[in-house]
Amino acid sequence: MQTLHPSLASVDPLLLGETLIRLNVLPIGTLHIDIEDTSFISNITFGMKTINAVAHSTQHLLSFHLMLANPRPWLEWIAPLRPGWIFFHAEALANPAEDLAAIHRTGAKAGLALNPATPVANYVYLREHLDGLLIMTSEPDGEGQRFIPAMVDKVTDASTLFPKTAIWADGGVDPAVAPALRKSGAQHLVLGRAVFSHSDISRALQAFAGE
Amino acid sequence: MQTLHPSLASVDPLLLGETLIRLNVLPIGTLHIDIEDTSFISNITFGMKTINAVAHSTQHLLSFHLMLANPRPWLEWIAPLRPGWIFFHAEALANPAEDLAAIHRTGAKAGLALNPATPVANYVYLREHLDGLLIMTSEPDGEGQRFIPAMVDKVTDASTLFPKTAIWADGGVDPAVAPALRKSGAQHLVLGRAVFSHSDISRALQAFAGE
Amino acid sequence: MQTLHPSLASVDPLLLGETLIRLNVLPIGTLHIDIEDTSFISNITFGMKTINAVAHSTQHLLSFHLMLANPRPWLEWIAPLRPGWIFFHAEALANPAEDLAAIHRTGAKAGLALNPATPVANYVYLREHLDGLLIMTSEPDGEGQRFIPAMVDKVTDASTLFPKTAIWADGGVDPAVAPALRKSGAQHLVLGRAVFSHSDISRALQAFAGE
Amino acid sequence: MQTLHPSLASVDPLLLGETLIRLNVLPIGTLHIDIEDTSFISNITFGMKTINAVAHSTQHLLSFHLMLANPRPWLEWIAPLRPGWIFFHAEALANPAEDLAAIHRTGAKAGLALNPATPVANYVYLREHLDGLLIMTSEPDGEGQRFIPAMVDKVTDASTLFPKTAIWADGGVDPAVAPALRKSGAQHLVLGRAVFSHSDISRALQAFAGE
Amino acid sequence: MQTLHPSLASVDPLLLGETLIRLNVLPIGTLHIDIEDTSFISNITFGMKTINAVAHSTQHLLSFHLMLANPRPWLEWIAPLRPGWIFFHAEALANPAEDLAAIHRTGAKAGLALNPATPVANYVYLREHLDGLLIMTSEPDGEGQRFIPAMVDKVTDASTLFPKTAIWADGGVDPAVAPALRKSGAQHLVLGRAVFSHSDISRALQAFAGE
Amino acid sequence: MQTLHPSLASVDPLLLGETLIRLNVLPIGTLHIDIEDTSFISNITFGMKTINAVAHSTQHLLSFHLMLANPRPWLEWIAPLRPGWIFFHAEALANPAEDLAAIHRTGAKAGLALNPATPVANYVYLREHLDGLLIMTSEPDGEGQRFIPAMVDKVTDASTLFPKTAIWADGGVDPAVAPALRKSGAQHLVLGRAVFSHSDISRALQAFAGE
Repeated sequence: MQTLHPSLASVDPLLLGETLIRLNVLPIGTLHIDIEDTSFISNITFGMKTINAVAHSTQHLLSFHLMLANPRPWLEWIAPLRPGWIFFHAEALANPAEDLAAIHRTGAKAGLALNPATPVANYVYLREHLDGLLIMTSEPDGEGQRFIPAMVDKVTDASTLFPKTAIWADGGVDPAVAPALRKSGAQHLVLGRAVFSHSDISRALQAFAGE
Repeated sequence: MQTLHPSLASVDPLLLGETLIRLNVLPIGTLHIDIEDTSFISNITFGMKTINAVAHSTQHLLSFHLMLANPRPWLEWIAPLRPGWIFFHAEALANPAEDLAAIHRTGAKAGLALNPATPVANYVYLREHLDGLLIMTSEPDGEGQRFIPAMVDKVTDASTLFPKTAIWADGGVDPAVAPALRKSGAQHLVLGRAVFSHSDISRALQAFAGE
Repeated sequence: MQTLHPSLASVDPLLLGETLIRLNVLPIGTLHIDIEDTSFISNITFGMKTINAVAHSTQHLLSFHLMLANPRPWLEWIAPLRPGWIFFHAEALANPAEDLAAIHRTGAKAGLALNPATPVANYVYLREHLDGLLIMTSEPDGEGQRFIPAMVDKVTDASTLFPKTAIWADGGVDPAVAPALRKSGAQHLVLGRAVFSHSDISRALQAFAGE
Repeated sequence: MQTLHPSLASVDPLLLGETLIRLNVLPIGTLHIDIEDTSFISNITFGMKTINAVAHSTQHLLSFHLMLANPRPWLEWIAPLRPGWIFFHAEALANPAEDLAAIHRTGAKAGLALNPATPVANYVYLREHLDGLLIMTSEPDGEGQRFIPAMVDKVTDASTLFPKTAIWADGGVDPAVAPALRKSGAQHLVLGRAVFSHSDISRALQAFAGE
Repeated sequence: MQTLHPSLASVDPLLLGETLIRLNVLPIGTLHIDIEDTSFISNITFGMKTINAVAHSTQHLLSFHLMLANPRPWLEWIAPLRPGWIFFHAEALANPAEDLAAIHRTGAKAGLALNPATPVANYVYLREHLDGLLIMTSEPDGEGQRFIPAMVDKVTDASTLFPKTAIWADGGVDPAVAPALRKSGAQHLVLGRAVFSHSDISRALQAFAGE
Repeated sequence: MQTLHPSLASVDPLLLGETLIRLNVLPIGTLHIDIEDTSFISNITFGMKTINAVAHSTQHLLSFHLMLANPRPWLEWIAPLRPGWIFFHAEALANPAEDLAAIHRTGAKAGLALNPATPVANYVYLREHLDGLLIMTSEPDGEGQRFIPAMVDKVTDASTLFPKTAIWADGGVDPAVAPALRKSGAQHLVLGRAVFSHSDISRALQAFAGE
């Protein structure tokens, strides 16, 4: 079975406290937090006030996905929250090994997120330093946010080229595509609307338990 | 009596929906929304997902305070929410008259916000175009956020030089400083912790009814 | 025969009105307009005043090539001119599917332009969303602006990997290289000096009618 | 009588060559060229191709007004055109004395342009280095571009504080406001629509000959 | 007598180690270090490798003058060097009180540096938070770096408006202007070429002992 | 034998003058100078004051490696130093042919530097314009700066695809990896700590003479 990471950006912001309480008793991997400030994608999600409040109200570990042109300074604010995983976007980094080392200093596992157009092969040289590779299986937000079937092959490439690295899939993931992602090597799924557009979160998660 | 504008950035993000319901029955001017993206001050508040959710859950008009280096493109997203007031920071604008005209096209009243170090006299030439002037009476966030007594004189200057413009005070305002602000000409108060750090919002607002 | 798109940036700026009148009676695809603001390439072409004047003086459709680090906000100004095609540079986009959707909302056909160093294979996942792919067959302006023979193979790759997408070639195209581009799959040619350095524009276009 | 500087940005771009020929026989100070690239004001005027063509087709000296966040690198391109005057915007400069020296090295007279909100008094320390001060008497473009009457006092301040510096007025200047500007000390007028919205440029210029 | 702060940026970079040894036995206030990265002024001085080497080779306290558009992240690197003073440029800060508090957390005294065109009166509201005000008495580097006599009056204003704040003068200071600066209230002098263009540093410092 | 290029960034900044004297009598290719300003990698090395002082104190040619987001304007300052080689980072350039031509105008040989994640194949189209290709064999600075064994294959690719171009290796190079780099085609080695962490520079260089 795959590890599931519900994503906070899809929670109804008016029901945030309540949703965290419900998630506390469900068996998830981490609570997934996208940070966006319009520098890398044209959207803002939430700032440190919200993130701090969430961190102190959940019993789950947090995984962070920094969709930022300059993610490094944020480590100072994230580190005290005992993060489980932190992903930076490879496209934003001139020297990713440096940045992965900085993530490791916070105690978190370190990963790179790759946009759909970015080849996985370019990053093989970092193989030993990468705990995780997050493959964007859609483009974020709006009309674009549909699962891109061609990304299943990219997940296969990633799990072949990076045998010791955890492969995450993020973007438009639903129960219909989860089995193909599992077979191609994605052990971790980030889930947004597939969970939070349902009134019963628990049942929505069970739909991924599969076969 | 002064018009009161409770500020969303001070609401507990886990209790947002609930707080909006309580505010619906209270006599406030507008719900005040600070938008920050780290380009102008080193903080993020909330993005359009939260703001849209709030707009559809409140019965109050919204006032927007854009603490952004490049506020103009946000009008496209704010305009559909029928904003009551929109303030841009004067320090971020090369040609504020242009920007005020763009605000007016949304149907909102248009204003400039001034940081503590920015002289009001510089903007007298815009007198006819300004519905409001928002005087920052503290610096935002963290340690700095204490009311700066010298700003009372600045409010006096503002109401003298801009007799037809509504003067707002924002930053560290509490019931103790409100009377001085009123006497110097600030008819509008933005309220953060003075309201939301209290368990009884209604009573916290009444403390400003004064004398 | 290939569709020809004369490029306004190569017109003598002192003879703009006159040249548009002459083009009105010639059988071209679109009038091609490069927009540059120094953010993506170190040159400026022309702003909206010139573009608006051109749009109201020509009987041809316009195709736009936005050589800009942040092309999205320009759609607001271009949309009212009923554009035929709009190309953004892939290198400037974190999430091109979003941007292509935004282009489509203007009613124009949507395309990506690729610099010589950018592999076409990276964008196969967008195949269904791309009306056009503009292959830069030179680098823009100055000394660099010579046709790069190796780009013929890139055009072949593009037409193989994107069978339903219109392939455009832009940069240093002249009658000598047009046949090779046609055979490798470029149905659209952007033409600059090959047309406008001639006193007889009509005859210069006929030189591309070929074989 | 005041020296007049017709501004190229107001010329019909389709009639540029023709207009330059007509201006050649008229008694103007310089041909005034605004350079804009969206970094300082949200507009583009024209790039070096147009400017070079103009420089080689006019018999007048050129005056340049660089409405750019980073004007310095443009000197390399402007210097070969034997510029008469170059103005940088004071708001864009951390160390204007350095920049004025760089302008002087091109052989041009050096000046600062000041937006309406920028106090002239701040720059008194540069008095000895300034050949000109260009007072923006409107905000540029669009709705904002109306003459701001309060700027007449600013011109008076400028000519009092900078007795050896040539004072220019730019923005919304027409024959009705020219006498007040002259009395307050503006010897130089930049003229846009007041000249080029008339079919007879020569007569439009004579309207400024005044009293 | 005034406290003297020789500035490292004027030391011959090929003789750095030697010069530090000579300074160790001289009675100076601090060793003054300008950090520049081209974002605020168009020059680079030195990076952390040089600064760390200096810090470990000197017996003097260090004072830092951050001529940077975004100085805040540098505190992380400077803090471990036990800095005596840190100055940020006021022009680079939207919310200086926040930044002064961040400086204080490093244990250093906190100050603002003001370019010649920036009025001291704008910052009176920060009076209680400012240990120092560094008045630029020239513009930095190149041709501009001549002492500006009008800055003596600015020093007088500063010492009147900020009676409890240490006033520093920096830029083109030599023994001829030191007495006027002292009388107007500048107790601290940053010294560059006036010290290091002399073969005998010790004697060059004595020339400031004055009267 | 390979040509050796000791890198100034690894010299003890307190012993710079002395080290240059010692290098003067040693048989090296060029003195290698990295310029960094935090825009491309989060470090500053040295500015033009240091570089000018070095240029006038060495008898060796200089090679420049510009780790800058916007390297072009630096050519103006570097050109007078009669540079032997200049490398720009390919990742920072939209139109590298233009930039290579600009380098050639200084009289220097022109090259591109490639970060570990950037494929060499993307730049084959520039084959005729490239005097050198500098393959980063580590990421710069800090923890990351270890030789990456996978880069040996990249050097092989580079020398196969670019038979007339000089291949340089830079990053973590020491005597143990030099032979493998030579066999795969790297004729030029940039050397940092492998030379300057030794007390006897001459002997450290001889360790690369090999077999």
